[in-house]
Amino acid sequence: MTTVFAYAAPSASGELGPFSYEPRNLRNDDVEIKILYCGVCHTDLHKCRNHWGGSQYPLVPGHEIVGKVARVGTSVTKYKLGDVAAVGCLVDSCGNCRSCKDGLENYCENAPTLTYDADDRKDGKRLYGGYSESITVRESFVLRVPSGLDVKSAAPLLCAGITMWSPLRNWKVNSKSKVAVAGLGGLGHMGIKLAKGLGAHVTLLSRSPGKATDGRRLGADDVLITTDEAAVARASNRFDIILDTVPYDHDVNPYLSLLRRDGNLVLLGLIGNIQATPLNTGPMLSARRSVSGSGIGGIQETQELLDFCAAKKILPDVEMIAIQEINDAYERLIKGDVKYRFVIDIESLSKVRG
Amino acid sequence: MTTVFAYAAPSASGELGPFSYEPRNLRNDDVEIKILYCGVCHTDLHKCRNHWGGSQYPLVPGHEIVGKVARVGTSVTKYKLGDVAAVGCLVDSCGNCRSCKDGLENYCENAPTLTYDADDRKDGKRLYGGYSESITVRESFVLRVPSGLDVKSAAPLLCAGITMWSPLRNWKVNSKSKVAVAGLGGLGHMGIKLAKGLGAHVTLLSRSPGKATDGRRLGADDVLITTDEAAVARASNRFDIILDTVPYDHDVNPYLSLLRRDGNLVLLGLIGNIQATPLNTGPMLSARRSVSGSGIGGIQETQELLDFCAAKKILPDVEMIAIQEINDAYERLIKGDVKYRFVIDIESLSKVRG
Repeated sequence: MTTVFAYAAPSASGELGPFSYEPRNLRNDDVEIKILYCGVCHTDLHKCRNHWGGSQYPLVPGHEIVGKVARVGTSVTKYKLGDVAAVGCLVDSCGNCRSCKDGLENYCENAPTLTYDADDRKDGKRLYGGYSESITVRESFVLRVPSGLDVKSAAPLLCAGITMWSPLRNWKVNSKSKVAVAGLGGLGHMGIKLAKGLGAHVTLLSRSPGKATDGRRLGADDVLITTDEAAVARASNRFDIILDTVPYDHDVNPYLSLLRRDGNLVLLGLIGNIQATPLNTGPMLSARRSVSGSGIGGIQETQELLDFCAAKKILPDVEMIAIQEINDAYERLIKGDVKYRFVIDIESLSKVRG
Repeated sequence: MTTVFAYAAPSASGELGPFSYEPRNLRNDDVEIKILYCGVCHTDLHKCRNHWGGSQYPLVPGHEIVGKVARVGTSVTKYKLGDVAAVGCLVDSCGNCRSCKDGLENYCENAPTLTYDADDRKDGKRLYGGYSESITVRESFVLRVPSGLDVKSAAPLLCAGITMWSPLRNWKVNSKSKVAVAGLGGLGHMGIKLAKGLGAHVTLLSRSPGKATDGRRLGADDVLITTDEAAVARASNRFDIILDTVPYDHDVNPYLSLLRRDGNLVLLGLIGNIQATPLNTGPMLSARRSVSGSGIGGIQETQELLDFCAAKKILPDVEMIAIQEINDAYERLIKGDVKYRFVIDIESLSKVRG
C-alpha cells in the first residue's frame, strides 16, 4: 500500500498542515475506504489543541467519515469495491463485554478504540482519522451508506447524528413524546431533525432569542427562551426528555423543572463537573426525574440511523470546505459561526499529494 | 366528636408535650382511625425543629400510622369498624393530574396534601399527624393492614418502607438484579429487606466497617466499605441500581462508577444541592448511567407493599417507646442510636387524657 496523505496537527499549538503516513497492511477483516467527505466535530478541535490532555502528535483528526470501499480483506463479506461506506467515532472494541454483546460498543467496558488519537487494539500502532485520503477499519465497524442518502452531507450523522439518535431511541421517543433540545449547534440541529423524524413534538431551548427563527426552520414546533422566566415557569412538567447539548458546565436546574414526572435530562456534552451552579436534587425527588448521560452510540444503531435518514430524507445542514480552510474553520467553530457543521471535501487533499 | 389528645411541638425550640384539638366532623368519605402505633421518622424531627423552614405550631408529627377503624362516613365502602388500617405520608391530592391518575399521588402536580404540618384540601384547617389518639382521613388514602402483618412493627412501612419499595418497583428490581443500598438507617435497613424479598442480590454500601455485621444480619449478601478504595475499584460496573439513603449532601461520584451501564443511582434523602463535591458527569456519559430522585410512593403501591410484607413476613426492626420518651428518642435519633426505627405505642397517650 502506498503512502497516505492527510492533514495533521503537529502539536497542541501548531496549525494543521500536510502529513503523510504508511497505512497498515490490510488484514483479512479490514475494509480500506477512500475518503470522500469528513465532518468537522468540535472534538477534533479539542483533541488537536489538547484541551482534554493526553493528545499525541502528529494527530490526524476526523470521525465523521464517508467514502468508497477501495479494498477489502479476504474474509470481508459485507462490503465490496465501490460501496459507499462510512466510519464514525469507533473502530474497535473488546467484543466480549456486556455492552459489546448488546451492540453498544460505545460503552465497551474495556474501553472502545476511538477512530483517532488512539492505538490499534492489535498492533498498538497509532490510528489516524478522517482528515485523510483513506482509512482502514475492521469490517464490523464500517457502516453502509444507503443509496438514498446524500453522500456530500451525510458525514455529520456519524457523530453529531448518532449522539442524538442513540438517546432518542434508548428513551423510546415516538409520536407521543414531547422532546426538548437545549443548544443549537451541530448536535442540537440534528436533535431537532431526528426527533421530528420520529414524530415527536419538539421544542428548542435556547438562551438567545436570535435562535428562534432557525430553530423553527429546522423543524422545531416551539422555541422556549430560557432567559424568559415567565415562559419557563409556564412550561414546567412539559417534556418527557430534554437532550442537553450545551458543551460546557452550565446550570441544569431550570431544565429539571421543565420535565414531566419520570422525565430525563440527558447530558450529551463533555461538561465534566456540574460545579458553577450545583445540581439541586429537590426537583428530582419531587417528580422522579433523572439526569442521565449518553455518549455517541453503537454500530448497530448507527446503521439504523443512516437507514432512517435515507428513508426520511433527513440530512445535516453543512458548509463544505477544502482541507486548506480547516484552520480558519476551527476559528469560526469557536465563535459558533457555522450552520451547522463543516464538512471537508477530501478531494481537496489531492493538491497536497501534488 | 370528642377532643383528641396528642403530643405536639409547641415551637421550633420547645420540647414535644401534651396537646389536644377538636377533630373535623366526619365527612361521608372519611375514615376515623383509633391509632395504635406510630413510627418516628427523621422528618418528624426536622419538621418539629423547623429545619426546612415553614413549620407551623403547634405541630403534631407522625406519618407512619397503624390503628383500628373507629368510625366510617356514610359513603365509605372499603372499611368497617374494627378493621386494622394505616395512614402514611399523604392524606389527599388533586386527583386529576397525570400522576394522581397513574396512582402516584406522591407526585401530584398540584402538590399532595401531607399528613401533618399541612392544611386540609377542603376546609383549609390544620392537619395533625399520628402522635395522636386518632386521625380522620379520606377513605382513598387509607391503607388496609393485612392480617398476616404484625401490627406492632408494621408502622415504619408507611414511610421508610414505601420510600424504598417504590424505586425498587419502578426500576423493576427482580431476582436477576444486583442492588446496592447506601446508608444503614431506617430507610436503608428496609431497603435491604425489601430488595432481598424481591430476590435480588443485595450489597450494603457503608463508610463504617462497623455496619457490616448488622448489614448481613438484615439480609445483605455483601457489604462494600466505601472508604476501601481497592474494594470500590473492584466493584466498578457491578450494580443495576443503588438506593442512596444518605440524608445529607455527600459525594455521590464514587457510587456512579459502581453502576453498570444504564444503572441508576436513586437519591432518596432530601439532600438539596450536590455541592460539597460536585457531580462529575463523566461516568454518566461513559456508561449511560443516571442519577434519579424518588420520593415516598403512591397509595396503590403502598398497599402492594403491605400485602407483600405480610406474604413474605418482612417487618421493620423497631424499638417500642412510650410517647413520654419522644424527646429523648429524638436525641438518640440524631446520634443514629436506634435499630432501626422507633415506634410509639400510642396506648401511652391515655395517661395524658387522664
